[in-house]
Order: sequence, then structure tokens, then C-alpha cells
Amino acid sequence: MTRQMHLGVFVQAAGHHVSGWRLPDAEAGGENLDLIQRIARTAERGKFDLFFLADGLTSGADAHPSTVVRIEPLSLLAALAMTTSHIGLAATASTTYGEPYHAARVFASLDHLSQGRAAWNVVTTSYARSAANFTRGMHPDHDARYEIAEEFVDICKGLWDSWDDGAIVMDKESGVFADASRMHVLDHKGKHFTVRGPLNSSRPPQGHPIIIQAGSSGPGQDLAARTADVVFTAQGDLGEAKAFYRSLKTRLAQHGRDPGAITVMPGVFPVIGRDRAEAEENYNRLRELTDLNGALALLSDRLGHDVRRFDLDAPLPDLPISDQLRSRAELLTALARREKMTVRELALHAGMARGHGIVRGTPAEIADYLQQWFEQEAADGFNIMPPWFPTQFDLFVDHVVPELQRRGLFRREYEGRTLRENLGLPRPVSRYAAA
Amino acid sequence: MTRQMHLGVFVQAAGHHVSGWRLPDAEAGGENLDLIQRIARTAERGKFDLFFLADGLTSGADAHPSTVVRIEPLSLLAALAMTTSHIGLAATASTTYGEPYHAARVFASLDHLSQGRAAWNVVTTSYARSAANFTRGMHPDHDARYEIAEEFVDICKGLWDSWDDGAIVMDKESGVFADASRMHVLDHKGKHFTVRGPLNSSRPPQGHPIIIQAGSSGPGQDLAARTADVVFTAQGDLGEAKAFYRSLKTRLAQHGRDPGAITVMPGVFPVIGRDRAEAEENYNRLRELTDLNGALALLSDRLGHDVRRFDLDAPLPDLPISDQLRSRAELLTALARREKMTVRELALHAGMARGHGIVRGTPAEIADYLQQWFEQEAADGFNIMPPWFPTQFDLFVDHVVPELQRRGLFRREYEGRTLRENLGLPRPVSRYAAA
Repeated sequence: MTRQMHLGVFVQAAGHHVSGWRLPDAEAGGENLDLIQRIARTAERGKFDLFFLADGLTSGADAHPSTVVRIEPLSLLAALAMTTSHIGLAATASTTYGEPYHAARVFASLDHLSQGRAAWNVVTTSYARSAANFTRGMHPDHDARYEIAEEFVDICKGLWDSWDDGAIVMDKESGVFADASRMHVLDHKGKHFTVRGPLNSSRPPQGHPIIIQAGSSGPGQDLAARTADVVFTAQGDLGEAKAFYRSLKTRLAQHGRDPGAITVMPGVFPVIGRDRAEAEENYNRLRELTDLNGALALLSDRLGHDVRRFDLDAPLPDLPISDQLRSRAELLTALARREKMTVRELALHAGMARGHGIVRGTPAEIADYLQQWFEQEAADGFNIMPPWFPTQFDLFVDHVVPELQRRGLFRREYEGRTLRENLGLPRPVSRYAAA
Repeated sequence: MTRQMHLGVFVQAAGHHVSGWRLPDAEAGGENLDLIQRIARTAERGKFDLFFLADGLTSGADAHPSTVVRIEPLSLLAALAMTTSHIGLAATASTTYGEPYHAARVFASLDHLSQGRAAWNVVTTSYARSAANFTRGMHPDHDARYEIAEEFVDICKGLWDSWDDGAIVMDKESGVFADASRMHVLDHKGKHFTVRGPLNSSRPPQGHPIIIQAGSSGPGQDLAARTADVVFTAQGDLGEAKAFYRSLKTRLAQHGRDPGAITVMPGVFPVIGRDRAEAEENYNRLRELTDLNGALALLSDRLGHDVRRFDLDAPLPDLPISDQLRSRAELLTALARREKMTVRELALHAGMARGHGIVRGTPAEIADYLQQWFEQEAADGFNIMPPWFPTQFDLFVDHVVPELQRRGLFRREYEGRTLRENLGLPRPVSRYAAA
């Protein structure tokens, strides 16, 4: 069989476009459980690998509509574990504002509840304003956040190995409930954390839940190369995406890992129409709905500089790269330079897909784009970011997926029962296993 | 209608008796989702108010079998929200090893997922060993833990009021997603926490999830009197339970609250037989299965003193009350004095029900006991702690509940849709509501 593409759906229930929720056929609300359940069912019908949730630790009336209110991702995915059977369930959780023992527990629990479908999108929380909700005077800087993240993820992997497979013997005859000889005390004492263990969870069905990493900066790539199974990245340009893909796979080898050990999945923002005219119409509707003030606010936020003080019809001035969202700021700045965009144009672009690749067209044209990126090794798969829900995602599943299947690029049935099996990744051996 | 009893089931999937899981008809495993789902269905068939989960933040092969491994409570209840429709879902969560923003979020999410059935059993985490899993040099002492808990719960209540009811307007025409004029920034700056807000959750269906408090110490009672809707308490003696009930209701008045504003629910450990002989047989089986070493370890743990160094057949010596589990240690010490128990007898008692009331008999006798406590105002309801699952709980629901219903003491149908409605409690008004 030829190499197969992997697909995730990045679910922001109010849509990825900042105003997609306003379209007549959009349903909205980060707390709209009926809609979210429908999206999960559709994704599973489409044989998607992943149902992916972002997260954030702040709110405000002026935030992106998908982030104002939302059901906490781990809770939502625990609920979806009961109503789905094959799709991977990926939640974003922060290593800057969490505790390794809690994180290891909730992801182990999700893996148990879903029988091996849990994934953790490890983020370091970009926004400094988060600190104000967590009794912290200061948000750690970029490099410190990545250092903390490395230690945090290592602890979680250690805690997941606390109990060997089968250690909870529950032998009624002897009265032995748990086999002490198959329990391991991590006793981690590091720079940022001290965690004794053992975890109060048996070893997860997948051994370790799938680790997703999204940072594209140097430290982000290194963290991914060392610890991740999936990399979710924002790439708008084929050439840059290929370079990123090569760079990451090279780093993998430096960490002694096989190039196939990581699935690279850029986000893609597809604007779909049943024919070319409908696709253009949908795109133009989104463009018209992109509120310039909202887009300028979003761009300012991403760049870490208030762009509203610049001439909107002049090129983006040279700006120091902000520490907050470093890799995103670099990507947007590079895009502006490459496409010779004005501040206004860059803002409208960012307002549409926040720096991710935008493709518009018929289902066959969307499939062409995905196929090209996939075959040219810019991607092993894609995290699909529908501009609004549910109709744009319905079109993807009902028309783009069958096209990919006809081309032999995407599965017709799930290969396995766990997410790890569907991604074609081996189950990790416990660090305590005899060599 | 006469005053109605409320019932919860305290679910520890390996049973409440330390060796209940060894009985032939016991099923076990804190991660046994099929069993847990069955218990939830049975409880809902029995019109129970509450499905109650304890929690802890440590593990070990020598721990109580129900605590060695377990699915994290909030995750488990989010899953059960999808497979149940009326029963309240109560999770234990610690104010000593958590963050108010996270706690407010996950309980709001559970309330959204369950359409108004979330409850939070607020605990301060008794065991000092927990600190070792959370990068803390020291576990705060009893009074400090309660001071932290007061501030923590107040912040959560404030965060739940971040958005007025209906503030997420999602008006497609105007493009207003969230009404900024109905958003509130808490901006809490206290002794232990600084939390700005707003919460990224709309106001929970219940306004605030139900607050349960279990501490019976002075600070515990004060926290309950000021903040709780339900008090879960360990009472083995009718006279003491009545005194506790009166004391708590008096404290309520001191905080300007109605005596009906809190539902007092002691734990009860019922050993049921279809006839007297079967009940005695079941009790004796449990007694024989109570491993003396395990029971001595448990008693040592509860008292905060290693009792294995004492003469097991002499009365319990006078011991300084440990700071760790203060109210539990006081209750056990009082019991030993009152019943003139030896160390061995007290250990076997603690090994059976950990200080909670034990009653054995036929369904009618169990009902008699509950009725007496209820009518003499030692309780407004009970948290039922079956010695093992599922059969002992099946007997309770199929035989004790109908008996209580025949006596007019317990509902035949749920009164409302939310837990708050079923407990007969009003929905809290937002702190920001115009007077």
C-alpha cells in the first residue's frame, strides 16, 4: 500500500474564521454540545484520525468567538469517548499552568475511557495575560517555558509507566489487589518539579497517550523531535512547509528516532464550494465578513505589537519579534515580506486563518492541494480547520474525503482500534521493562 | 408532602470494605467502566440524588483497593453525563493542590455537559504525602488548608458569575457574539490567590454547581455553613449525629442562611441480606475478610499514629490528635472510648467502614435505621456506601428504596431536571445582579 495521509479536524465550534459563525448556515457556540457531537460523528464517518481541541486560559468579549466560552477540553473529550468509537481525541493542555501529576492523570483517564484514543497537544501557553488567572506575577519567557515543558512531559511519561501492564491483578483467592513488585516510584527531582509517584492510574491502553506538539520555533522543534508523535504546524507556503518538514525529520534522527516516528500535520483552512463559483462566493462572503478592527486586533496580538498605529496601506514595518508567539510572528512577518502585503492585507489574511494555509475551490481542487503537499513531503497529513461549522465540514467529509479515497491517499476503514494503531505507531515499552 | 429524604451513592468501584472485592459476587476495579456505568444506571433507576466520587492524589500497592488506581473523577463524570439523564454527578476536588481557575472551569463544564447536574465535594486533602507529587516541600497545616479553601471556593463562585445568564448572545445580524456589558472581571487579589477572570465559561445551568463539604472539624463546619449546599459527614452514633446536625444548622443561621439551605448526608455502610440470616452471613464474611494488618494500617493512617506498636487487646491509649485527618481521628477516638473497644476491635471497625455508620439487616431493617436517623433530625439524607459492588447496591435499590417509598420518605420520580431542583434548592442569583 502507498503511504497514507492522516486527517484531523480542528474543532472550534464557532468556526475558524473570526466571523464564520455569522453565515446563515453556520451554527455556533463553544458550548453547543449538540453541534460538537454532530461534528464528532461526521469526522468518524469520514474515518478521521483525530478530533482536535485547542484551549486557552483567558476570556473576554473581544476574543475570537471560538474562545470566549468553551467546554474544558478534557471534560468534553471524556464525554465524546462515550459517543464515538474510533476517532482519536486530542486535547490541548498547558505545561506552564498545570501540574504534571494532574496532567498525567487526566490523559491516562481519557485513554482508559476511550480505550486507547487519547492525545495531548502539549502547549506552553503563549499569552502572558494567562498569568493573571493563576496567581503568577510573571509569565515565564519563551525559552523558560520550553525548558519547563521538556521536564513536564518527561515526568508524565514516567508516571504513565508507574504500573506495569497487568499489575492490577485483583486476585480474589490470594487477596492481592495490586502487585507491588510491578509498581514503580518515579521519584523525580528536577529543576522545576519534584514528583514522587506512583500515579493512581494503571498503564494507559496506548502505553502513553499520543503526544502532539505545535511549536515551530527552534526549542519547539527540539521538544517535538525528542518527545512528540504528531506535529501540528502553521504553514501557508509549500516551500517553507517542505523545509520545515525536512528540518524536523533531520532533528528526529539526531534524537535517534525513526523519521516515521512523527506525523507532521499542518493546519489547512479549506473554503469549499460544490463548484468553483460557490467556492468563490463562500470565500468572498468570508472576506466581506472579516471585520477589519477585529483582524487588526488579532494581528496585533499575534505579532505582539499594536499594528493599528501604522499606515494600513503601507508594507509592514520592521518589528522586533515578540517573545509571546515567536514562531507565529515569524511566519506572518515572512508571509508579508514574500507576498508584499500591506498591513491591511496581512490583517485580513490573519483574520481569516491565523497564518494557516488557505485553499479555496471544489472538492477536487482541495484534494489536489492536499495531494501536492502530501506527495512533495510538506506533510504527512492535515489538521482541517473549517471556516464555519457544520456545513463546511460536511462538504469536506462527504466530497473531499471520497476523492482522497479514490486517489488511494486515505483509508476507507480504520486500521486499528487505538489512535496509535491508526497512526501506525508502536506502543511504547515501559522504561522499567527488562531489556 | 412530608419532608423527603435525599440519597447518594458513594462509588468506590472496588467496594467500601477493604476486602469486599474478594467476595464471589463482587466485581472490582477503579477503572472498570462497565461496572461504573452499571452502578450509575442502577442509581438512576433508584431515583438517587447523587452519584458521589471520592478522590486522592497518591497511590500505592498497599492502599485501599478502591484508591490504588481510579479514573480521574471529573473525567469520569463528564463521561457519565452522556449516559445518564437525571442523577447529580459529584466529584471530589482538592483546594490545596489545585487552581481556582481550573476548578471553576471543570465544574462549570460538567454542569454544561450534564445540563445542571454537577456537584463539587470540596476537600482540603488530608494526607501530607500528597505534597510529594506536587513539588511542595510541605503540606499546609489543617487551619491553613481551611483558610485556603475558603478563599478558593469564593473565587470559584465569583468566576461562575463572570458572564450573566444569556450574555453569549451570538447575534448574527449585528455581529455581536458576546455582550461585553454583561461580562464581569472578578479581579480577586487575596492572601493566597490572585485571579483576574473572566472565566471562559458561560454561567453554569445551576448558576453555581452544588457545593459539598465533608469536614466535621470546627473550621470544616464553618466553611460548610458559609459556602456548602450539602454536608457529607462520618457519623456512627445517633446521639452524636443529632448534635452535629444541630450544631451545623445553628452555624447556618449565624451566617444568615436558612436551615434548609444545607442537606446533611452522613455516610452509611449497609450490609444487606434478603433475610436476617443472609445479612448476618454477609456481615460475618466481611468480618472474616477484614485483614488485621490492613485494618491496623488504615487505623494508623486515620489516627496519624502507628497503632501497631500498642497492645492490640488493650484499650486505645491517649494520643495527641493528629493534624492530618483531625475530625476523623476525633470520631474514631470517641467511638473507642464510648464502646470500650480494644485497639484490635477499633481497627476491625475502621477496616470495615472507616468510621461511618454500619447497619446490617433486611431491607426493612435498613429502612428502619434510615427512617430513625432521618426523623430524629440526625440527617436529611444519606450517602450510601455499599461494602461491595454491584450486588449489595442492587439489593439497596431493589429492596430498600421501594420500602422507603412505601413509607412516603423518598421520591418515586425526580422532581426536577437539575440536581439543585431535586435537592429543593434555589438557583443562586449572580453577585452582579441589580438589587
